[in-house]
Amino acid sequence: MLTATSVKERSLLGLKDLSREEIQSILNRAAYWEAQSEKVVPALSQKFVVNMFFENSTRTRFSFEMAEKRLGAEVMNFSAGVSSVEKGESIYDTVRTLESLGVDAGVIRLKPVGVLQELAQSISIPLVNAGDGNNEHPTQALLDLYTMKKAFGDIKGLTVSIIGDVRHSRVARSNVWALNKLGAKVQLCAPDSMVSSTLKEHASYVSMEEALKADVVMMLRVQLERHNQGLFKSTAEYRDQYGLTEERAAGLSGHTIIMHPAPVNRNVEIDDAVVECPRSVIFQQMTHGVPIRMAVMERAMKG
Amino acid sequence: MLTATSVKERSLLGLKDLSREEIQSILNRAAYWEAQSEKVVPALSQKFVVNMFFENSTRTRFSFEMAEKRLGAEVMNFSAGVSSVEKGESIYDTVRTLESLGVDAGVIRLKPVGVLQELAQSISIPLVNAGDGNNEHPTQALLDLYTMKKAFGDIKGLTVSIIGDVRHSRVARSNVWALNKLGAKVQLCAPDSMVSSTLKEHASYVSMEEALKADVVMMLRVQLERHNQGLFKSTAEYRDQYGLTEERAAGLSGHTIIMHPAPVNRNVEIDDAVVECPRSVIFQQMTHGVPIRMAVMERAMKG
Amino acid sequence: MLTATSVKERSLLGLKDLSREEIQSILNRAAYWEAQSEKVVPALSQKFVVNMFFENSTRTRFSFEMAEKRLGAEVMNFSAGVSSVEKGESIYDTVRTLESLGVDAGVIRLKPVGVLQELAQSISIPLVNAGDGNNEHPTQALLDLYTMKKAFGDIKGLTVSIIGDVRHSRVARSNVWALNKLGAKVQLCAPDSMVSSTLKEHASYVSMEEALKADVVMMLRVQLERHNQGLFKSTAEYRDQYGLTEERAAGLSGHTIIMHPAPVNRNVEIDDAVVECPRSVIFQQMTHGVPIRMAVMERAMKG
Repeated sequence: MLTATSVKERSLLGLKDLSREEIQSILNRAAYWEAQSEKVVPALSQKFVVNMFFENSTRTRFSFEMAEKRLGAEVMNFSAGVSSVEKGESIYDTVRTLESLGVDAGVIRLKPVGVLQELAQSISIPLVNAGDGNNEHPTQALLDLYTMKKAFGDIKGLTVSIIGDVRHSRVARSNVWALNKLGAKVQLCAPDSMVSSTLKEHASYVSMEEALKADVVMMLRVQLERHNQGLFKSTAEYRDQYGLTEERAAGLSGHTIIMHPAPVNRNVEIDDAVVECPRSVIFQQMTHGVPIRMAVMERAMKG
Repeated sequence: MLTATSVKERSLLGLKDLSREEIQSILNRAAYWEAQSEKVVPALSQKFVVNMFFENSTRTRFSFEMAEKRLGAEVMNFSAGVSSVEKGESIYDTVRTLESLGVDAGVIRLKPVGVLQELAQSISIPLVNAGDGNNEHPTQALLDLYTMKKAFGDIKGLTVSIIGDVRHSRVARSNVWALNKLGAKVQLCAPDSMVSSTLKEHASYVSMEEALKADVVMMLRVQLERHNQGLFKSTAEYRDQYGLTEERAAGLSGHTIIMHPAPVNRNVEIDDAVVECPRSVIFQQMTHGVPIRMAVMERAMKG
Repeated sequence: MLTATSVKERSLLGLKDLSREEIQSILNRAAYWEAQSEKVVPALSQKFVVNMFFENSTRTRFSFEMAEKRLGAEVMNFSAGVSSVEKGESIYDTVRTLESLGVDAGVIRLKPVGVLQELAQSISIPLVNAGDGNNEHPTQALLDLYTMKKAFGDIKGLTVSIIGDVRHSRVARSNVWALNKLGAKVQLCAPDSMVSSTLKEHASYVSMEEALKADVVMMLRVQLERHNQGLFKSTAEYRDQYGLTEERAAGLSGHTIIMHPAPVNRNVEIDDAVVECPRSVIFQQMTHGVPIRMAVMERAMKG
């Protein structure tokens, strides 16, 4: 078993508390894994990892699973709803159980904010945050950084606009923390009801017109399932005001790239035709998620 | 990545468009795998496959998973209902995501007819149809053919009766396409409400009495969950008219075999006592599914 | 395929019919596996096992999965609710299907009592009981025995109190059968509505005060989901009368250990502060489950 200190160092709870050097080191290691021609290597053989999704996910779960399997780890999957969490078992007890079974690391997605930090205090295996409520989604931001770095060579000096439901977005938060550390200029654009007051000190809010003048335009998913509707009369109204429509995409500067953490609401925050247009790197982001998570899981588990 | 042409050749969307030679080649390769004494071989090591079931299944999913693992592939499983398809993500986006992650092939079961063909146009990894609505279920028909071939030596010249809910049966359709290509005589038997007009040109409808005079009697599952009941006053009435009762089974010719794609509705389309009677090959069909799917997955993924 | 007799010998349906020697042999083999430094060994490579949970579980399912993977077996998982059991397929047909696919052993959890015994009559692969209704949960009791043996050196002569919902507890039953065989003195303590008349002949009922004077105090989960509430006005009332409160725990004899099969209802049958107190071995029980299940699965499948 690892010592308490080294466990903390191996965990990845968020980017807010990660140093610039640590972030760079993960990005560099991801590049190593992306260049690796063997699909499966025995780097983490004899290691067990559990992916615990207390909130549903396709993309993120598979991305982690693939990263773990490419490193030769033994993988177990857990989705709430098909488990005894239904029997009122607490998240803490579930994670403690998995630790007791001898699991070497846990990937965890959960809704309530703050629980992961508490867990990390009392659990003696490394934990990797796969999205905790509207707090952080560090591996998503890392793959976003990786994608920007591949597109522009360096992140320092880039102007990055994050547009949409900033308030409920863990992706926005993780990106703001990391982009600031790496020397990018971050600007936010959101309707009043989707503004995050926390982020106000860390990035300026701009108009939609201003936001589109950037090197990176990162559209956020409207969290339809989290909202008490009624903010906009219709998704069409949202699209009119804050959507990356074909027209708006056509007006972007030649070198600007379009990002989205996905899954997309087509024709709400982004037009169908824009999702796979040449300047969109949305599917490249997904591709980059695998080497990023290989770097993160290797960091969490390697001897 | 494979070229567009070779991807199409490696995919298995249905038997309607597969040549007789291709079908024979898969059956022969399945025989090779059935004779293989090693349970797990490294034929597809370093390859990733995702089983995507947008419609529930036990038998078919496990049969694919076992085939894939016996070939040494890395397997990921996906069932709708525990995924972000619940968040309104489209099937297309899910499959595109998995492709972006670097998956080498996808097995897919889904309800809406036509979607798989569209997917295959835009996705650059081989796709294997594990059942699409009431259109096709090619691996089921291939294992049916394999079972007939083992029982009779050759399929050419056999009389095969397909009895029951022909209209809603993707199994019936795949079998009709393939049996015609291989020179069998196919006859259908169904109540008026379960007749498929498409298949009328490809096989003759006969009475229940006539249908039972055949080398192969293939009973279909009554798709209770797809019907707006009321066609029959009761399942007992259906059994009386179209069920393979013990009495009817006793009257079959000595060499006739009984097939069913399963899961069976015991005492509806087939009597409980008939399911495991000596002339029933229902559980052999399941056994044959594994080598058939090994042949199909090897064809989809091998270098 | 194994012969019918040897299959029966390899199955583990319950401890009621297992000899003392067999139990000792499993405990000894678990000690071997616990001492094993390699996490994954190829003892069961080339073998397929399916974990079939017709009733939800986190802890037990992962414990089996981990044990199987540590032995190098190929593992497939099945949870009712994401399968065609929803289509009315019977448990028998599901298990027969998996047998037909060539699976080498099945781990099974199910609700209805008696079904597992019937299955074992007609299925020709070894079956391991992971909990069947309120009948038996043999691997849980084996890990309990293992934990007691580690704490006290020998089980013979120990006084073990099992407290709480005895009537609905498969854990209590498996423990009573095994503890009697191994020469422990078992005493039960339960409110009237939770008394098991079957167990009356095999262990004496004592008061709560008496029950706490024991070498082992094993608290049972109140099966809130199985009860028609109303037995107690509140969980607080249950705690007052039958809970292992901090006060009661403080009064235990110095050498007494506290056990619970988990998941716990904190502050119902056991106080939050007691769960992880020094004399509690609850998380050690979980840890011991893995080597116990390695021994059981090896016994089921090894050539």
